Order: sequence, then structure tokens, then C-alpha cells
Amino acid sequence: MNRPIGVIDSGVGGLTVAKEIMRQLPKETILYVGDTKRCPYGSRPEQEVLDYTWQMVNFLLNKNIKMLVIACNTATAFALEDIQTKVSIPVVGVVHPGARSAIKVTENEKIGVIGTKGTIKSKVYEQALHSINNAVEIYSHACEPFVPLVEQNCLEGEHAQSIVEEQLARFENTALDTLILGCTHYPLLQPLIQEAMGERVAIISSGDETAREVSTVLFHSELMQTDDVHPAHCFFTTGSQEIFSQIANRWFGTALDNIIEIRLD
Amino acid sequence: MNRPIGVIDSGVGGLTVAKEIMRQLPKETILYVGDTKRCPYGSRPEQEVLDYTWQMVNFLLNKNIKMLVIACNTATAFALEDIQTKVSIPVVGVVHPGARSAIKVTENEKIGVIGTKGTIKSKVYEQALHSINNAVEIYSHACEPFVPLVEQNCLEGEHAQSIVEEQLARFENTALDTLILGCTHYPLLQPLIQEAMGERVAIISSGDETAREVSTVLFHSELMQTDDVHPAHCFFTTGSQEIFSQIANRWFGTALDNIIEIRLD
Repeated sequence: MNRPIGVIDSGVGGLTVAKEIMRQLPKETILYVGDTKRCPYGSRPEQEVLDYTWQMVNFLLNKNIKMLVIACNTATAFALEDIQTKVSIPVVGVVHPGARSAIKVTENEKIGVIGTKGTIKSKVYEQALHSINNAVEIYSHACEPFVPLVEQNCLEGEHAQSIVEEQLARFENTALDTLILGCTHYPLLQPLIQEAMGERVAIISSGDETAREVSTVLFHSELMQTDDVHPAHCFFTTGSQEIFSQIANRWFGTALDNIIEIRLD
Repeated sequence: MNRPIGVIDSGVGGLTVAKEIMRQLPKETILYVGDTKRCPYGSRPEQEVLDYTWQMVNFLLNKNIKMLVIACNTATAFALEDIQTKVSIPVVGVVHPGARSAIKVTENEKIGVIGTKGTIKSKVYEQALHSINNAVEIYSHACEPFVPLVEQNCLEGEHAQSIVEEQLARFENTALDTLILGCTHYPLLQPLIQEAMGERVAIISSGDETAREVSTVLFHSELMQTDDVHPAHCFFTTGSQEIFSQIANRWFGTALDNIIEIRLD
């Protein structure tokens, strides 16, 4: 079905998810909204996150999207259920795909979760994991310095390495074999995280897993675009087009066409 | 929702899928039907496979299943679409989950598929892969000696190794980086297949991926069993209870309770 998939995020972090959807589903068209002006959502009150998220959703519903992806862990934690019950299209968040993959991959049922303060405090991963398997042991930690690191483009080198090691040191005596990156910024630090955790720990990136779940849900809802078209993606930002473009370029090494400034409030 | 998941197969091969569902979704109850008496389906005419598959489906629909898993590649190839359009519960086959995973994992978009003659001839994997991404190059081969090897429990040693190597030699000059095991018997040969293909080739097992897709579809259909219950699985076979039990034991190292002989024809 040749209608676009809507992807929303508090800023640019969700581009890691959008990029994976484009790679895994190259026939699908993406409309992305990044609320860059009001980013980050991580420390905002629940009602505010819910209101802002609904503004993005309503903007995209007016553009006839066939599916909505909430590519932000905080917005998924606070708004997924409410949106799922109120809209008629399928809605996919980033939490359950990550949880499902961790349960698939773990051999000893000891799973770590890292994310922003808001996500960790909401216990949304605990709920998702235990809804599937009560026996799973979960170790979670809010890695507050990670988002600033990524936003300063400090993705390698001694400084970044020492911060990553320091944050992950708390998992030292847990014997976990799987770690969920519960924040869409974190995949950009994945090499350092993998190094700090050791090769034996499987790292689960929400983005990759969410793209796959989008594929599954599209198929079972008979919404897949199966004809070969050249999709014209579009990226909407509440902040500066120039800064959005720079960050996208820096992270992905490719220029994004069609970046458009919008107002939501 | 405390209703069982139905899993059907031409014989015992689908137990690799059932086992993964039990591991990834420990709260769910499985009703398994193996048409052991009329196994294998791989070389039967399409209409016969369709009829036999419907007999298993109707048997399980009478037992109030909430979802159907066709854990047999041949039956998926010939019957999935027909069943999906005619029953009201979600139906998951083994082909699309494997295809989706291969597309997620491949880096060079060169994917191999091995399966029975029927599955390979049906081009069901080509269709599934190209419906998602037309650019993927697919190399497929029917590895006819593999099912007999597994059924003779010849899973390691020189004889098995030389057969596996001989069959997979045809992929030598293809540069594929991902290989789909398009038959539920093949995961039992996975160590030999991995060795023959080399560590750089990712091996995709239908069973693991199907279990994950079951989890996704249950969640989005609001059919998940989230309360903690102790599920009482049940295994129906059209053949001998004793032989079914022996094979299950040999493959999985655990005795299965509740194996019941039935007639479908």
C-alpha cells in the first residue's frame, strides 16, 4: 500500500530507527517528525511528553500515514498505550521490539537495560520483559552522560571511552549476557559499549529491532508496499533545518533531502 | 489471553519451532499437530499438501486456538495464503520471518536459501524476499539428502560433514553473507552448515525467527498471555506415539508429556 509510515521522535535520535526502516524496507516512504526545539523529553513531566507526542501524531495523521512508529523511548513509555487505543492505524514503539529480541537472544535470562532517567524510572522495559517472561532478571541503569556525549559528536576516543566504562561498571557483577540500548542515541556509542561489556554480551539496538517489527506488522496488517517505487522521504523538524541537516549528515554520512521546518504548538 | 497457540507440521521437524516458541514465550500453551503418518510433504502434489494441511487446521480450530503457526516450509509455501484468507485468527508461516531476518542481517544483499525440493521449486522465499526488497540477489538450492540425514539422527561425524560440504559447495563463488535454513529439520545440522559456510556467513533458522514473529503478532493482536500460568502443552501425532516420543527425546533431550495419537483422514 503506497501510503507513508510516520516516524516521530523528540529530536534526531529517532533517525537511527528511520535509517534502519529505510534499509530493511527500501520500498516504504518515511515521514519523520523530530521535535528538536523541545528536545530532550527525558526529564519532562509525563503529561507534557504525552501532549507533545500527540501534536506530532496529529500532524502525521493529517498526512494519511498507514502506520506510526514512536522512535523515542521516553515517548513510548508515556504515550504508546494511549495512542494505540485512540488511533485506527497500527502503532509500534521502540520498547517491545527491544524486549522481544533480548528474550530471544539471552541464554541465562539475565538482561541489562540502559536508557535515560525517564525511561529507566518508568520501568517500561521491566513491564515489557516480565509480561513475556516473569523469570527474567533485569538490571537497569540510567546512563545520563550518554546523550550529551552523542550530541557533542564525541563517539570515540579516551574521554568517551572512560565515561562509557564508568557508567557500565555497575553491571560488573551481574553476569548478564544481553544488554538493551533503551535510548535511540545509544547505537552511536555501540562500539564503545560493546568493548566495555566484552564480546560475550549481546547488545540489542532498539532501532534495528523496531524496523523488523515494522516489517512484521505491515505484513500481517496487509499494509506492505510491494510494488517497486522510489520513495520520497520527508523530514519535519520543529527546530533549525540547518542544524538538523548537519547532525543527520554527521551521523549517517549522507545528506537528507526534504528537511522542512514546522511549528507544532 | 489464556487460549492455546496451534502449531502444525508434516511431522516432527516443526518441533524446532515449537521448542523456540516455548522458550521465548514461556507463558503460552502449545497444541502441536504432527502429521507423521503422511510425512514428508516435500514431494507431494500441491493440492494434497493443501488438503492435509486443512485437516490439521480444522482439528485445531475445534480446540479454540487463538493463533495458528504453520511450522513447515512446504505447507507454508502451498497453504499459507489460502488459510490466512479463510480463518479469523492470525496465521504465521515460517517463510516470511526467515526472509525478514535475512534482510535485516545481510550487508551485501546476497542471500542463500536451502530447503526441500518442493519449497525451493515453489520460489516462496524469492517472492517473500523480493516483495520487501527487489535488489536482493538470491541463490537457492534443494539439499535433498539433509532430511534423511536428520531423520537417521546422523547429525555429526565424517559422513554427515561430507554430505553437508558437498551440498553447500555450490555456494562457493556466490559471496553470499546470509543463508536461510528453509526447512525445519535443518537447524539440527546447523553446526555442520556453519562450519561448511564459514564464520562470515550468518545462518538464519526459521524456528527462532518464527517464534519471535509469533510474539510480535500476539502483542499487536492483543492476544498475549501475560498472567503467569503453567502451560500444559499437548502433542498430537497421526503416527506412533512411541516413535514421536523417541525422536522428540533424541532431538531435544527432554521427554514430552501429553503425546496423543489421532486420525485426521
